[in-house]
Amino acid sequence: MRTITWDDERDCIVMIDQTKLPAEHTTYHAETVPELIESIEMLRIRGASGLGAAGAYGVALATRRNDADDFEAFVDAVATDAEAIATARPTAVNLSREVDSLRGVLRSCTSIPEARERTLAAAEELADVDVARNKRLGEHGAELLDDGDTVMTHCNAGALATVDWGTALGVVYSAQEAGKRVDVIANETRPLNQGSRITTVELQERGVETTLVPDNASGLCMQQGMVDAVIVGADRVVLDGGEEFGDQGVVFNKIGTYKHAVLADRHDVPFVVAAPHATVDTERSADEVEIEQRDGDELRKIYGTQNAPPETAVYNPAFDATPMELVDYLVTETGVYEPPLDRAAFEAEADRATP
Amino acid sequence: MRTITWDDERDCIVMIDQTKLPAEHTTYHAETVPELIESIEMLRIRGASGLGAAGAYGVALATRRNDADDFEAFVDAVATDAEAIATARPTAVNLSREVDSLRGVLRSCTSIPEARERTLAAAEELADVDVARNKRLGEHGAELLDDGDTVMTHCNAGALATVDWGTALGVVYSAQEAGKRVDVIANETRPLNQGSRITTVELQERGVETTLVPDNASGLCMQQGMVDAVIVGADRVVLDGGEEFGDQGVVFNKIGTYKHAVLADRHDVPFVVAAPHATVDTERSADEVEIEQRDGDELRKIYGTQNAPPETAVYNPAFDATPMELVDYLVTETGVYEPPLDRAAFEAEADRATP
Repeated sequence: MRTITWDDERDCIVMIDQTKLPAEHTTYHAETVPELIESIEMLRIRGASGLGAAGAYGVALATRRNDADDFEAFVDAVATDAEAIATARPTAVNLSREVDSLRGVLRSCTSIPEARERTLAAAEELADVDVARNKRLGEHGAELLDDGDTVMTHCNAGALATVDWGTALGVVYSAQEAGKRVDVIANETRPLNQGSRITTVELQERGVETTLVPDNASGLCMQQGMVDAVIVGADRVVLDGGEEFGDQGVVFNKIGTYKHAVLADRHDVPFVVAAPHATVDTERSADEVEIEQRDGDELRKIYGTQNAPPETAVYNPAFDATPMELVDYLVTETGVYEPPLDRAAFEAEADRATP
Repeated sequence: MRTITWDDERDCIVMIDQTKLPAEHTTYHAETVPELIESIEMLRIRGASGLGAAGAYGVALATRRNDADDFEAFVDAVATDAEAIATARPTAVNLSREVDSLRGVLRSCTSIPEARERTLAAAEELADVDVARNKRLGEHGAELLDDGDTVMTHCNAGALATVDWGTALGVVYSAQEAGKRVDVIANETRPLNQGSRITTVELQERGVETTLVPDNASGLCMQQGMVDAVIVGADRVVLDGGEEFGDQGVVFNKIGTYKHAVLADRHDVPFVVAAPHATVDTERSADEVEIEQRDGDELRKIYGTQNAPPETAVYNPAFDATPMELVDYLVTETGVYEPPLDRAAFEAEADRATP
């Protein structure tokens, strides 16, 4: 099944509950907007494209749970819900962007029934677009891989981070479809372990030979020549690096991505970012991107066991910033780009990518 | 109390049980050689100097638990035990080295009572020497730190990795004694979390402001200018880098150390290795050092909870190799050295360091 979709029978959102992996493969039904927001905050649904779809379906859900008498009050109520959904997590651009896109649909409606029908249709279309563009992205990226390569990946930028197919792992799946054998080294990705809990599961389901390593071991793996390419996804790509990074652009992705880019650079291992144009933010500079800080208890406790003294101060950023100078290839649904990017040409490609 | 010492009343080894931290502060009595070996394997006692002391006390323990009738059979039995202790973990040089040193004591004895008395006295002396040299090391290293500095450290190279005072953290404690305020950023240090479970505990007990970070966040911390120096210990320092690293020497230390050295290099943060001469192996080249591989269940399960599918392949090396070109300062009990090392001069210093 898709990572997130609409349950017609129960008239609500249904998603794979990623907090339960790898022990349980279950789904969660978000029947209300607060249940969806909780699901986003606790990472039942996650990943840039996954969050984009959650945002779009969320607006559709809001239209079905608000039953104001007149249309104006209805639109106001849905707008309030939409704002709460859009800001549930700050770093991935897709969440607020797809909520905005659905707000646009809502503004063009003139009745409650029309709004309910058209927002759901728009969310479904957006989900279909996500899968189609991930497949195109995967096919472009697969050209970078040779039969027998081993790819290191960080966190989960697979089917479970999108509606389906994935971005970084989509490249691996497309290579596999093209008849190439590609093995994967999956970093555990502390503190939420999406590499060990999620990436391993979906790779094994698709028959990809997978080796799990602690994040600390990835440098040794590169030093020992075990890695032919590092491929990661992105939560937000900005083309304006701001004060710190200048005009080269920056990739915001799961914490630890930057370290792997630096190590790949030292070991001449190609560092590949796989992200659809929908993840590219052409409006903000790196300075304006908020890096989400998460609860210190994610480190103080692991699976309920005390992992550090309870009063310990914790710095727990969820994302980091990788300057484009460390990125060898940026793969989108329109092709493979080698930074430094020609910004005007790249933005033109983004327009071409719009479905 | 010391991390490991002799319990006169029970006539056996007593150690802080580090597997129980941070939830419980308890001790474990190793009454037999198999109990000591189990304690080394499961990391109740750990750290290069801690393992050295465990090896020495272990030989003393072996003399007290073997009661052969004639001295020759007694020596053979103790030698068998000593060999098993020396090889309980492969990477830290101190374990086999201090067992060897006690074997030398044993060879100079002529009766069972003499062997029992003199091996225990030698182990006690070795423990005292460890504390004294760590304090000298700390004083040398403290000269590298300024009031107000923040030190990042990896794993635990503190009092709990030695008999007392520590190496990397000994530098922090010595700076504190000299009236400087030094804060610490402690990396969690997956997969065994000695940073979060152990380093935080001993730093808090000594009033050092400590912030715990996931290993993945350490690159962002350096990028954001939060780190004035990275200070780590060493399990083994070799002066001959072998085929891969040439004549520059290599530091073997907890997995992840190499990544931090590469990042510190990129960000011009001084990378400091604090290790007594007893940790320097002048005989072997880097090629001859075995990197311990640990059980994959350390990643598949965390605190008993399934963290990855049970059949997942895991690569779980306990140590990695950092070439000396990435080390800005090597601090020992004889002073502060700036690589590249003058090997002859450094070895002469090592001779001077011998108590």
